[in-house]
Amino acid sequence: MQPNPYNTGLDRTPANHQPLTPLTFLARAADVFPDHTAIIHGPLRRSYAAFYSRSRQLASALAQKGIGRGDTVSALLANTPAMLECHYGVPMCGAVLHSINTRLDAATIAFQLDHALSKIVIVDREFMPLMQEALARAEADPFVIQYDDPEFDGPGTSVDAIDYDAFLAGGDPEFAWLMPEDEWDAISINYTSGTTGDPKGVVSHHRGAYLLAQGNALTASMGKHAVYLWTLPMFHCNGWCFPWTLSTIIGTHVCLRQVQAEPIWNALADHGVTHLCGAPVVMSLMISAPEASKRRLDHSVQFLTAAAPPPERVLTDMKAAGFEVTHLYGLTETYGPAVVNDWHEDWSALPAPEQARLKARQGVRYLPLEQLDVLDPETMQPVPRDGETMGEVMFRGNVVMKGYFRNPEATQKAFAGGWFHSGDLGVMHPDGYIQLKDRSKDIIISGGENISSIEIEEVLYRHPAVKVAAVVAMPHDKWGETPCAFIELGGGEQADAETLREWCRAHLARYKVPGHFVFKPIPRTSTGKIQKFALREQAREFANQ
Amino acid sequence: MQPNPYNTGLDRTPANHQPLTPLTFLARAADVFPDHTAIIHGPLRRSYAAFYSRSRQLASALAQKGIGRGDTVSALLANTPAMLECHYGVPMCGAVLHSINTRLDAATIAFQLDHALSKIVIVDREFMPLMQEALARAEADPFVIQYDDPEFDGPGTSVDAIDYDAFLAGGDPEFAWLMPEDEWDAISINYTSGTTGDPKGVVSHHRGAYLLAQGNALTASMGKHAVYLWTLPMFHCNGWCFPWTLSTIIGTHVCLRQVQAEPIWNALADHGVTHLCGAPVVMSLMISAPEASKRRLDHSVQFLTAAAPPPERVLTDMKAAGFEVTHLYGLTETYGPAVVNDWHEDWSALPAPEQARLKARQGVRYLPLEQLDVLDPETMQPVPRDGETMGEVMFRGNVVMKGYFRNPEATQKAFAGGWFHSGDLGVMHPDGYIQLKDRSKDIIISGGENISSIEIEEVLYRHPAVKVAAVVAMPHDKWGETPCAFIELGGGEQADAETLREWCRAHLARYKVPGHFVFKPIPRTSTGKIQKFALREQAREFANQ
Repeated sequence: MQPNPYNTGLDRTPANHQPLTPLTFLARAADVFPDHTAIIHGPLRRSYAAFYSRSRQLASALAQKGIGRGDTVSALLANTPAMLECHYGVPMCGAVLHSINTRLDAATIAFQLDHALSKIVIVDREFMPLMQEALARAEADPFVIQYDDPEFDGPGTSVDAIDYDAFLAGGDPEFAWLMPEDEWDAISINYTSGTTGDPKGVVSHHRGAYLLAQGNALTASMGKHAVYLWTLPMFHCNGWCFPWTLSTIIGTHVCLRQVQAEPIWNALADHGVTHLCGAPVVMSLMISAPEASKRRLDHSVQFLTAAAPPPERVLTDMKAAGFEVTHLYGLTETYGPAVVNDWHEDWSALPAPEQARLKARQGVRYLPLEQLDVLDPETMQPVPRDGETMGEVMFRGNVVMKGYFRNPEATQKAFAGGWFHSGDLGVMHPDGYIQLKDRSKDIIISGGENISSIEIEEVLYRHPAVKVAAVVAMPHDKWGETPCAFIELGGGEQADAETLREWCRAHLARYKVPGHFVFKPIPRTSTGKIQKFALREQAREFANQ
Repeated sequence: MQPNPYNTGLDRTPANHQPLTPLTFLARAADVFPDHTAIIHGPLRRSYAAFYSRSRQLASALAQKGIGRGDTVSALLANTPAMLECHYGVPMCGAVLHSINTRLDAATIAFQLDHALSKIVIVDREFMPLMQEALARAEADPFVIQYDDPEFDGPGTSVDAIDYDAFLAGGDPEFAWLMPEDEWDAISINYTSGTTGDPKGVVSHHRGAYLLAQGNALTASMGKHAVYLWTLPMFHCNGWCFPWTLSTIIGTHVCLRQVQAEPIWNALADHGVTHLCGAPVVMSLMISAPEASKRRLDHSVQFLTAAAPPPERVLTDMKAAGFEVTHLYGLTETYGPAVVNDWHEDWSALPAPEQARLKARQGVRYLPLEQLDVLDPETMQPVPRDGETMGEVMFRGNVVMKGYFRNPEATQKAFAGGWFHSGDLGVMHPDGYIQLKDRSKDIIISGGENISSIEIEEVLYRHPAVKVAAVVAMPHDKWGETPCAFIELGGGEQADAETLREWCRAHLARYKVPGHFVFKPIPRTSTGKIQKFALREQAREFANQ
């Protein structure tokens, strides 16, 4: 066989090959639009020139502290300018950004600091007591930097830590920051909350962050100078890569310490916000706010939602308020959203319930994800495209993590057979859109039959009295497991267990009707996800009563 | 030194690493929006499902002919559906697409076929006589496929070639097309026109095509379902990668065999075209069309222009007609445009001449280009950012070619010092925008002073009687060289050599004033570029007279 003539004398050189990294996005934004507002935070306006030079100062100051390639820098921060600077400044000295969920307990944070080999922690003053407790438990002894956000007006704490701005002041704003040696180098580590066993550290690389950041802009049709409101926590898989996306289109970040209806509405109206992200609970929060808190918007706003399918009523109300809602899906292992409910124009002519049914589907692959499928995990063959046969949702492509940190076994298991196993169960519809039916661990197995908790929840959500519904498995002597439904009522209507049981009988196969209904507030994680683990524990107690 | 813990047990696997290739864009578009119109050509409407399955058929039929990795497939085609299919179908069997400029002479085409080791040629019926002449001269003996475009109504030719559609019919529409083995694999080869010496074959790879295709969508703010009119020849560095860009946003291609004012206006109005590309001459053609041929547009259209700075009058007229004009710059070696005159909103408030002056600058790097600078080619140091000191424009990054085919010397020379040397001379303005002053070979050296032909042309363009101006070097006994100006008059006003000489004296240093003015039609290349090589030959004759 002849050698391929196109592979001779045509090698990679610095002229035609550079590592892909989102750090170049900020460098470009600052070069081309130095005076454009990059960050709004309360009364603060920070230009791209300042954003870039402060990020370089951070990188320089970290380098002076001996931080370099492969070192971990942890951040326990709210959605503040400092957190945005960390997304650039930390990797600009070669280090890896470890963002910590601010609602975790001290023991979990201590575990993460130790496991991630953390050398520096940057901590918002509000969370310093939590960090101090974590540090007391941890073996790691990182250098502590405290960020005193002017927008935080809580009580002071006296700690032995250098101030973030003072630390930055020691850095060089012209610092010759480091490109990654290889685009496969780590840029961040994020720990999954894992309901069983120790949390796993998901390692992301520069290549994937570059590609997903661009994928967001293309998916959300973000034009030049889009304005983005930070309702999604940046600690949540790097804010789905949006800290990097905004630099690609020279956009403006509007920071927000706390997700509350009035500041959201004010930001939307005052700053001309064009895009925001969050779980459906953020939409509910906005819609159910008192009318006096709401503001009239003179422009259309894109709301990108994930974590749970948006209920029909929320969609209808959001549309009436001037929002376009796009349903995304992904995992920390996929840099955030890697699946989009890519909307067909003609679907907008369908009746609202049909639109909600279509929008509840998670959808199709993002542009930078090469393959998405629902496979039988035993045979690794695709399930039929019938919208009914369940399998495991699997991903393959450049926006799948580098692997789990210091956990080669978990990494190999996650990538078995050349696909990333999401642990989510779903179906493939005839048109190629996937729909989640459950987490593997959330499936209810009753009399040998798999029952999707999501299917039951969808039926319950359609009842006008139900505001929130969560269904988990409850141990059952005869059937092994049976569904148990947790309900929050709302919307002025009332319902009791008997009403909802009848409702379910009318809409579900008999064996799927919950054996027990519980009316009480439902616990959520900091990102708005329902804590099914806690509900399962409660359900176990009901079964034993 | 400790090994980097983030490089242990976190290797590339098929689950998290796939070659970047624009071929996946079409696969996704066809999966998600199978019924959306991908191609309009005369009365033809072709869906994404059909576009994809026909491209796979082409790949399959080529594979059956023994074509595979590293083989060259040549195309001598107009802007037709077949040419779009070649951009996917040829690389889908592992082969490399060689697009041929349809206005070349037979000898040059013969050289290209031989040098590119062409195994197949796909030829539009209109260009079959040209191809037959080229084949008669070439040593290569490729298999010939004739494409009979229904939109071509010229006279028939009788040739011994299989029909394109018949050839496709032998292919499998479900063909399991080949991903590149490596994203560095070649996807296309395009020969530069080179005014001296043999043409050079610019090899592009899948990675660069993927990145520039996305860069186009981001640069031009192309939203979902944008509609693109093919006024730019697809044979011209793969139509600047737009054949691939459109699949990223599920857009519609509107094909066009010939660039004429009436069909352009009709397409804009009838198909809701949102974007088109071309040299400034295409804008002049549209603007100077009879009013009866023009159509009123109910939407804003983006015109992306390159090859020469858009003159002020053209910009003013285009704006009045509802177009936004963006000035791009690049070379075949950079996949098409890799530089954009990224517009600042506040510039739109400036007087028209000032706006034209700003828009004449080539601008800043595209997002997927990592570095752009004006360097002194001797020292490889950046020139001062003063807008005056000339240097060579150089590129570095992932949208720079793989190299010149079978020409390692030219490749090494082009990449000397780790930068791609464009051969274009320019300056760097204080705000980081570059501006071309000349091709190295177009510079005029008079009494040891460098004179930019573009600077003189800009002055001439500002004269109300001048429609087109082109300045080249003319040999001069005393000064070595002196400028010679070629002029096309227009706009109803008159001017003679003396008028223009006075005009130049008023606006230029004395030594830059052209020694000779020639009033005659100016020869252009098929892409609208002025053929300075031909003008230089004419100027030499004037000097000898």
